[in-house]
Amino acid sequence: MNIVVAQSGGPTCAINASLLGVFRHATKYEEIGTVYGSVNGIEGLILDNLVNLCDIIADDEDVELIRQTPSTVLGSCRYKLPDFKADRTVFETITANLKKYGIGAFFYIGGNDSMDTVMKLDDYFKANNIDIKAIGIPKTIDNDLPITDHTPGFGSAAKYVATTMQEIIRDSSVYSSKSVTIVEIMGRDTGWLTASSAVLRQNGEVAPHLIYLPEAPFSVKKFLSDVREAQQKHYAVIVAVSEGVSLDADDFQSGKVDNFGHKYLSGVGKALEKIVSQEIGCKVRSIELNVMQRCSSHLSSKRDITEAERIGGAAVKTALDGFSGRMMVYKRVRNHPYNMRIEHVDVREVANKVKYFPLEWINETQNNVTNDAIEYCMPLIQGEQNFIMKNGLPKHYVLRFALSHDKRKGKIE
Amino acid sequence: MNIVVAQSGGPTCAINASLLGVFRHATKYEEIGTVYGSVNGIEGLILDNLVNLCDIIADDEDVELIRQTPSTVLGSCRYKLPDFKADRTVFETITANLKKYGIGAFFYIGGNDSMDTVMKLDDYFKANNIDIKAIGIPKTIDNDLPITDHTPGFGSAAKYVATTMQEIIRDSSVYSSKSVTIVEIMGRDTGWLTASSAVLRQNGEVAPHLIYLPEAPFSVKKFLSDVREAQQKHYAVIVAVSEGVSLDADDFQSGKVDNFGHKYLSGVGKALEKIVSQEIGCKVRSIELNVMQRCSSHLSSKRDITEAERIGGAAVKTALDGFSGRMMVYKRVRNHPYNMRIEHVDVREVANKVKYFPLEWINETQNNVTNDAIEYCMPLIQGEQNFIMKNGLPKHYVLRFALSHDKRKGKIE
Repeated sequence: MNIVVAQSGGPTCAINASLLGVFRHATKYEEIGTVYGSVNGIEGLILDNLVNLCDIIADDEDVELIRQTPSTVLGSCRYKLPDFKADRTVFETITANLKKYGIGAFFYIGGNDSMDTVMKLDDYFKANNIDIKAIGIPKTIDNDLPITDHTPGFGSAAKYVATTMQEIIRDSSVYSSKSVTIVEIMGRDTGWLTASSAVLRQNGEVAPHLIYLPEAPFSVKKFLSDVREAQQKHYAVIVAVSEGVSLDADDFQSGKVDNFGHKYLSGVGKALEKIVSQEIGCKVRSIELNVMQRCSSHLSSKRDITEAERIGGAAVKTALDGFSGRMMVYKRVRNHPYNMRIEHVDVREVANKVKYFPLEWINETQNNVTNDAIEYCMPLIQGEQNFIMKNGLPKHYVLRFALSHDKRKGKIE
Repeated sequence: MNIVVAQSGGPTCAINASLLGVFRHATKYEEIGTVYGSVNGIEGLILDNLVNLCDIIADDEDVELIRQTPSTVLGSCRYKLPDFKADRTVFETITANLKKYGIGAFFYIGGNDSMDTVMKLDDYFKANNIDIKAIGIPKTIDNDLPITDHTPGFGSAAKYVATTMQEIIRDSSVYSSKSVTIVEIMGRDTGWLTASSAVLRQNGEVAPHLIYLPEAPFSVKKFLSDVREAQQKHYAVIVAVSEGVSLDADDFQSGKVDNFGHKYLSGVGKALEKIVSQEIGCKVRSIELNVMQRCSSHLSSKRDITEAERIGGAAVKTALDGFSGRMMVYKRVRNHPYNMRIEHVDVREVANKVKYFPLEWINETQNNVTNDAIEYCMPLIQGEQNFIMKNGLPKHYVLRFALSHDKRKGKIE
């Protein structure tokens, strides 16, 4: 049989490593013929836009380059399948294309939404006695997928956040006058990535002095009092705040704090910058780490990349063992020395669900995290990749494929 | 005699390397006794806040760590000296402190404003027959100092900008729908750092497709037409824009483009994001590279760091040769293979002056740069530093000194 792999959702530094895991592991099995890649996630299977990875990944340098390239070499999508009981058309198209290429297993590397796709395809295949396996391979910098100890991509994002936060602390602490620096960190509705900035404590940093996660209630009044208290001890106060923190708290709404207009548009960091400027009046700067958190492969964690490749390989074995409708997961065995094993669970236990940061890892005053959070993150940011450089820059692998929308214009949109 | 070195202005990745250059070169000369560091730039000399670097920099590991730590280990300031003919007081205080420590030469690592300090001190010393040499050592990521071929700190910032831009391009190019990504880059009123993003062409990147520098006139109408034209060829259009680009152009003021309120507060990137969203309506994101451009030492250019240390050393020799009121400069000898030598010029030729990006390196349509700009930047971003790591993170050197404002509260402010 042949197999197909696709990438979906927001980019990370590890998603191409998982693709390599699938590809390289598959080539070890005699029963697997061609490994196809679907362009732009599931869109490629709808629009018959597949590439033959066996032709494309020609040598060891290709493998090295794909491993060090961030984002998705096969493109991505945000396409959500309908319920097949309501609309079978797209499922029939996908199945026809899978059969056309003799495909016996479909591997989808993605986050919560992508697991919904795996679940729906598996439901459809099983209901119609179609012998095609659908396996999910997790990825997201947000680390918000249930059951798995952590997600591929999170370790590299955490290493970026901690390294960059340390540099921002140096940058912010040079003047002999009071200042507040607010760093806004991704993670959607969960605080995992913001919490990872606390690993700096292991290297003797006191900052970030205040850490706010979406899992804890946020009050502007309390925030201002936290900052004022921190200013008693530190001239340069550093704040880490999750993008998912909502300022719609009581004090904010009730107008105790000056009017900052309606729902803030530029993110929570900018909003807090304005609040500090108006209420405290010292020098203040907000910094959005933005997409750099998910694409700075030059700072990726070697452990994350290695694990991401392993979980891709394990997915192939899982399909060959006859499983379908499963998502691969990491199980942490121990922390000292760190060890984890790979298992798989019913994708229905993961799809469309969210794993929040544990409330017991947030301190009592709800403005920092406990050492448990640091213990959890530390093993995941270890190790650095060696890079193939060209002209003083990391060399990237770019696959020049036809975008799905080019192939059959308008069919998706 | 003893000497003192201080750091001033905005941080860079190379300013500590220049400090090391002064320190390590000075220890080779028998005629130099103690090397002092002035805390928070010139403030330390006003408030008698000096540290003995010979005590502090104890071994080779200290040297390595200081070299890989961004920002200023001695702190910084934005203090501007008055004209000594109007107010001698502060000059008398500084001179008394210099004499108290037996200091015969003062080295100031900084940008345009810091060279103003060097100039004024030299004027005062010469007018009063005080035999203390004042030497300026350039630094700024903006690369806007006259005469010197480039400034220490620029190469590392350019390497960060190019590497990060390449990763942003990968991140932005995954979906099969139209998008515009706008990256706002530092450089104050000059376009050097923004222009450096064009080096990616050497590695086969077409993006950034549009590059806007403050040296060229900017029109919102023209910008929108540029973006629309680029969208004919590229689904994911990438724009690099200098923070110094002003939107106060005709079309903007005349209201041809919708009202975005008064003077934009969140930077030019955010403003252009809003304009694209309103006028073109596709997916659009703006990214500020923010302080990461000047403090991401984990991505510093080895050539920049090596040169920054050399120019610090050369400054010591210049003072010992009897010169004062000079700023050290790089002279590029050739590009293939790259070679430069270090000279010195009258600091009055540099202080408070700005070197703009050459107009002849901007293309005819004023939305990109020519290959001359790439040839100029390429040698400056070459080489990577080896890092001492700790717990998966670059190890930083932190000098626990008393801030100047603590020592004599209120005296400066």
